[in-house]
Amino acid sequence: MAQLTLEEKVSLASGSDFWHTQGVERLGVPAVMVTDGPHGLRKQAGESDHVGLNDSVPATCFPPAAGLASTWDADLLRRVGAALGDECRAEQVAVLLGPGVNMKRSPLCGRNFEYFSEDPLLAGELAAALVQGVQSRGVGTSLKHFAANNQETERMSISAEVDERTLREIYLPAFERVVTQAQPWTVMCSYNKVNGVYASQDPWLLTQVLREEWGFAGLVVSDWGAVDERWRAVAAGLDLEMPASGGSGDASIRAGLDAGDLTEAELDVVVRRNLELLAKALPAMAPGQTFDADAHHALAREAARESAVLLTNDGVLPLDPSAGGRIAVIGEMARNPRFQGAGSSQVNPTRLDDALTALRAGTSREVVFAAGYVAEPAAGEGADEALVAEAVEAARGAEVAVLFLGLPASWESEGYDREHLDLPGGQVALLEAVRGACDRVVVVLSNGGAVAVDGWAHRADALLEGWLLGQAGGAATADLLYGVVSPSGRLAETVPVRLEDTPAYGAFPGDSGVVRYREGLLIGYRWYDTRRAPVSFPFGHGLTYTTFAHTDLAVRATGAGQDASVEVALTVTNTGERAGAEVVQVYAAPQDAGVVRPEQELVGFTRVHLEPGAAQEVSLTLSARDLGHWSEVHHRWVLEGGRYEVRVGASSRDVRQRAVVDVEGEDLVPLLTPQSEAGTWLEHPVAGPDLRSRLGEAAAMLDDPQHGRMMRAIPLVRLTRFPGFPVDEGDLPALADAANGSR
Amino acid sequence: MAQLTLEEKVSLASGSDFWHTQGVERLGVPAVMVTDGPHGLRKQAGESDHVGLNDSVPATCFPPAAGLASTWDADLLRRVGAALGDECRAEQVAVLLGPGVNMKRSPLCGRNFEYFSEDPLLAGELAAALVQGVQSRGVGTSLKHFAANNQETERMSISAEVDERTLREIYLPAFERVVTQAQPWTVMCSYNKVNGVYASQDPWLLTQVLREEWGFAGLVVSDWGAVDERWRAVAAGLDLEMPASGGSGDASIRAGLDAGDLTEAELDVVVRRNLELLAKALPAMAPGQTFDADAHHALAREAARESAVLLTNDGVLPLDPSAGGRIAVIGEMARNPRFQGAGSSQVNPTRLDDALTALRAGTSREVVFAAGYVAEPAAGEGADEALVAEAVEAARGAEVAVLFLGLPASWESEGYDREHLDLPGGQVALLEAVRGACDRVVVVLSNGGAVAVDGWAHRADALLEGWLLGQAGGAATADLLYGVVSPSGRLAETVPVRLEDTPAYGAFPGDSGVVRYREGLLIGYRWYDTRRAPVSFPFGHGLTYTTFAHTDLAVRATGAGQDASVEVALTVTNTGERAGAEVVQVYAAPQDAGVVRPEQELVGFTRVHLEPGAAQEVSLTLSARDLGHWSEVHHRWVLEGGRYEVRVGASSRDVRQRAVVDVEGEDLVPLLTPQSEAGTWLEHPVAGPDLRSRLGEAAAMLDDPQHGRMMRAIPLVRLTRFPGFPVDEGDLPALADAANGSR
Repeated sequence: MAQLTLEEKVSLASGSDFWHTQGVERLGVPAVMVTDGPHGLRKQAGESDHVGLNDSVPATCFPPAAGLASTWDADLLRRVGAALGDECRAEQVAVLLGPGVNMKRSPLCGRNFEYFSEDPLLAGELAAALVQGVQSRGVGTSLKHFAANNQETERMSISAEVDERTLREIYLPAFERVVTQAQPWTVMCSYNKVNGVYASQDPWLLTQVLREEWGFAGLVVSDWGAVDERWRAVAAGLDLEMPASGGSGDASIRAGLDAGDLTEAELDVVVRRNLELLAKALPAMAPGQTFDADAHHALAREAARESAVLLTNDGVLPLDPSAGGRIAVIGEMARNPRFQGAGSSQVNPTRLDDALTALRAGTSREVVFAAGYVAEPAAGEGADEALVAEAVEAARGAEVAVLFLGLPASWESEGYDREHLDLPGGQVALLEAVRGACDRVVVVLSNGGAVAVDGWAHRADALLEGWLLGQAGGAATADLLYGVVSPSGRLAETVPVRLEDTPAYGAFPGDSGVVRYREGLLIGYRWYDTRRAPVSFPFGHGLTYTTFAHTDLAVRATGAGQDASVEVALTVTNTGERAGAEVVQVYAAPQDAGVVRPEQELVGFTRVHLEPGAAQEVSLTLSARDLGHWSEVHHRWVLEGGRYEVRVGASSRDVRQRAVVDVEGEDLVPLLTPQSEAGTWLEHPVAGPDLRSRLGEAAAMLDDPQHGRMMRAIPLVRLTRFPGFPVDEGDLPALADAANGSR
Repeated sequence: MAQLTLEEKVSLASGSDFWHTQGVERLGVPAVMVTDGPHGLRKQAGESDHVGLNDSVPATCFPPAAGLASTWDADLLRRVGAALGDECRAEQVAVLLGPGVNMKRSPLCGRNFEYFSEDPLLAGELAAALVQGVQSRGVGTSLKHFAANNQETERMSISAEVDERTLREIYLPAFERVVTQAQPWTVMCSYNKVNGVYASQDPWLLTQVLREEWGFAGLVVSDWGAVDERWRAVAAGLDLEMPASGGSGDASIRAGLDAGDLTEAELDVVVRRNLELLAKALPAMAPGQTFDADAHHALAREAARESAVLLTNDGVLPLDPSAGGRIAVIGEMARNPRFQGAGSSQVNPTRLDDALTALRAGTSREVVFAAGYVAEPAAGEGADEALVAEAVEAARGAEVAVLFLGLPASWESEGYDREHLDLPGGQVALLEAVRGACDRVVVVLSNGGAVAVDGWAHRADALLEGWLLGQAGGAATADLLYGVVSPSGRLAETVPVRLEDTPAYGAFPGDSGVVRYREGLLIGYRWYDTRRAPVSFPFGHGLTYTTFAHTDLAVRATGAGQDASVEVALTVTNTGERAGAEVVQVYAAPQDAGVVRPEQELVGFTRVHLEPGAAQEVSLTLSARDLGHWSEVHHRWVLEGGRYEVRVGASSRDVRQRAVVDVEGEDLVPLLTPQSEAGTWLEHPVAGPDLRSRLGEAAAMLDDPQHGRMMRAIPLVRLTRFPGFPVDEGDLPALADAANGSR
């Protein structure tokens, strides 16, 4: 630090080009490379284009987050992370730009495939494991996009208007969990404004919350082009502007320093963090490292097997690969798979499995194929009659038809959002036609965000939601359909009945430069379960080829206030004929809340793999934080005392066992002011008895059975102005101070 | 003014006691009296108690606003208003404290019976007529509670957090309409805070919006006890503090003057408005005036007949008073009617009709009675078995059973809100029991706010929603049941299926001192229709004993921008056998909106009374304001051009005719800044072509079919920082100024 000139310090605060940080050649400080790609490396080959979206070097394409999240398997995520770290080392990439833990506020968000869940606990647990995995290899991650970046529409200019409690309980906790559990080397700020302030220059977000409250020790990098005024961003705690801004950022910092708006000490903080990142990154950047592409492909296949979610199955699955009868595989996506989303996370895979080949390889049965539809239909285009006819022909006489349906690649991308939840109309027509030709129909879906299935799901005998499964998804799908393994994915996001039912409907993606998070705390299952609204498939849902029993729930509360905890134990037994994994989900439902709470919230989960007949005890401990809420009165997390129902089950709507437990909460007494309601004064442990004795007979009007309720809701200061009221307005401040000081 | 001392001026800014303004004895300036009661006078007899809720002198109790609103009959409201004015004159009351035009944000609001509707047009039109009626008699009104007072819970301390567009389009327009159409003598501020500022001391609300924008020329009075700091309220434009505050208000004003926070000129404004009110009020206050109680009772009966809404009828109604067979009248409310709500609007009626007596008087048939339930069940109390058995006995063998059900009086009051939408469980059990004993069952409801009927409405052959019908409601109900007149009421609020379906569910009544209006614009039918959600009975619904045909819809747009208008004409024909009234409702549905709009909004209505076979042409003109929205970009009402569907029908979901019309909107060009999206720059009529020529070949990246959409969403200033971008960051402010100045 001491050897750096001011100019060198300024230059270190931003990148040297599209993908490299700045070094200091004079002092032998090298630059390092960072690249896109939470589910695989996207290191651009050759020279960058303007937007950095050119072809990249081959890398293993694991399932994107929408798939990985459905595994509910932190250990798997850790292993995927380690593999990603090894690929980074081989390519001398110091920081992998991911994972993205933004909440799925609306299924329309074009980038939902890159995000984990509508639930912050699930997203945070899995992302933390991924970060631990990458960083275990000496490679950094960039937790993104911080914060409240839940849409693509106007993402670089819109202001996300979110009340603090909603931020604290919904949009920030996944970031908080990853920071506190895994200390990502970097956090990437988002493009948007949060409550009117660019995330890139918000000191509350980047310094107060992230560093001072959560203890983040790493570097904050801008999303590519997210900086508006660089000196403000430095002051707010944004350490590294990416990409190079053609001198604009440096000029801004110098202007800020010259004007006295920014101090050199503030700049030094930023410079130090850049140097620290370099120091952390360099050891792993030795040239000549390689990775085992075959092993990574196998891991990608394992991840894909766990990512797919079996939504319905009337018994048609698994298919018997050695039985008789023809299998008709229908759908363009069976041979040209959709395996990832478009935009900055788009990986150039080392190889690519397709389901058609894998299904053929896995059986001795005859497998016929028909494309059924075109990959990219024109807007408003219906079914292709010739392709449908061909598909019907293939399905007729087949023992089973397996239809690969899904969203066209161009419908899901970074940069824009969907406008509806439907499949292309031609695909639904294809399903109807095939249904008419074949008695047994299995549908396999490929889509990065939820699609509405209400109009047609009942036409399939089984429905396998594949999300986007990465480069080994085709083989993994065959494994699942043939029962080589049991499906074990669980929905990390609700499948709604209709777009109009979704929580943010009418408030997504906003307009006029503003998007208001009107549904507040109630996103995802929190909305549907609180409003007791119908869904197509609930959060946490997923079938297997076996069955599980949940028994012997035991719930016990200990401690009080911030030290309170609830121990939850139960036994899970595989009661079926096949091995499989159960995801035990624990939801808490406050029964006596003094503030609005969602009907229930996921507070814990465990994935258990069991052989047929095997049983395992599962235990979890819920903390005060797990059960508490962010208080708008006390401006911190608090735990209210009272009854909490602990619900344990296999989805938010498949509660198998429940128990009510009494939790000893904090002693929460509000601060009194003269404007506090008379009833609040009377209930205060110190001020109440005092006030009552001063009131004498006048207390009767507050206790009156008919009007007392209305009277107690009057601010005490207003009551003092009533004729003959025995307490003087002027005495209230002192009474309030005495009461508040006594606590 | 010139003769007043400072002390006298200060004293004029608040009341002299609970119900009187301050006079100046020295100068012969008298005090005048104001009293509660939008649907009848509540002049307290003898001395006031602390809260002014003692018994009052007898006065005609018209149906409360929940009833009157269901008439959709402005002419009737005007006549009711004139009658109220006459009663005020007789009692020497200068100002009647009403009407209340707050929106019914949630059916749970305890004071909904005093409010008109969930729709601001309907509420505003009817309240304006009532105000015109009262004031035509030389008596003032007080339009209340201004503003965003949509709940009773914590009403004196809570902050209603509402974005400005929602205020402008939903919560303010009914006030605006009454002010601009009827100039109420006074407006009463509400207790609550609006976005953190007490309504009583909010200069934006009380001065900028109310006076400067809408042209309000009268006096602003506080709700009783709504003033927190009197000097701030004076500065904000609150002219009269009520009631007397024991010198607290005067002391605050003097302190404000002494500290220089308040000027004497500001005080003079307030004093002048108080003197002007006195000058307006005194002419009508001559002693010895009387009113015709019989005529007013008859008017109350007419109003009640129009207020009831026939929700279902399988043909059982009307009952034939001269047929054979016994009529079983069941339900305590048939003999002890619930005819108004509790709290400050509670009138001591001049007489009181009950339905049982009226039904007996109207027929030669045998009428038996059973109470069926107790008026005020204890919490959680079920059916009273003995009363149910008696009711079943009465119903058995009866030709028809008429059940009077409804909410206990204690469930609906100023001062607190309901917690659910259900009838007492005992009443539903009674209905089931009676249904088992009698083939024909009619249910008559008495309730101030909507109740959930989904669980039991199908058990009734007819369902008459009586709301609260005032002192002549009993006779009016008999008139309707016997077919003396056809029911003609239409719902002014949606009847939801379940509480969980209501727009504000989870966001009403708030907590921690804050209630966020999370549903935004989408209250009432705007929510249900936009989300295409089921309702029990839609806004605007109501059956009659006849039928109407709507034909020959003609829609024509003329003019442009703020001068645009749409003329709507159609023919309504009574196609049935009886006279009756149709309420023609016109909804507008923007088809090309660039901002979020509700699915449709009521933009006009007309009530037409027709003899059998008669037809009438109905025409309405919709203005730019009717079709427009409050722009958050331009901070004013704007009209977007494009297609609007005009829907004409008999409820929000019974659209009989529709037509699409092209409306020429305003030329709305956004102000450009360097941070505006590149696409916004390119679309600008002046800056766009200029920018494109400066870009030269670089424009290609913005037009790129694959990445262009994402590129155009980048703020132009960020693009200038890309390497080689041909426009300089430093040039943008001048380019923006040039473009903005050109408009």
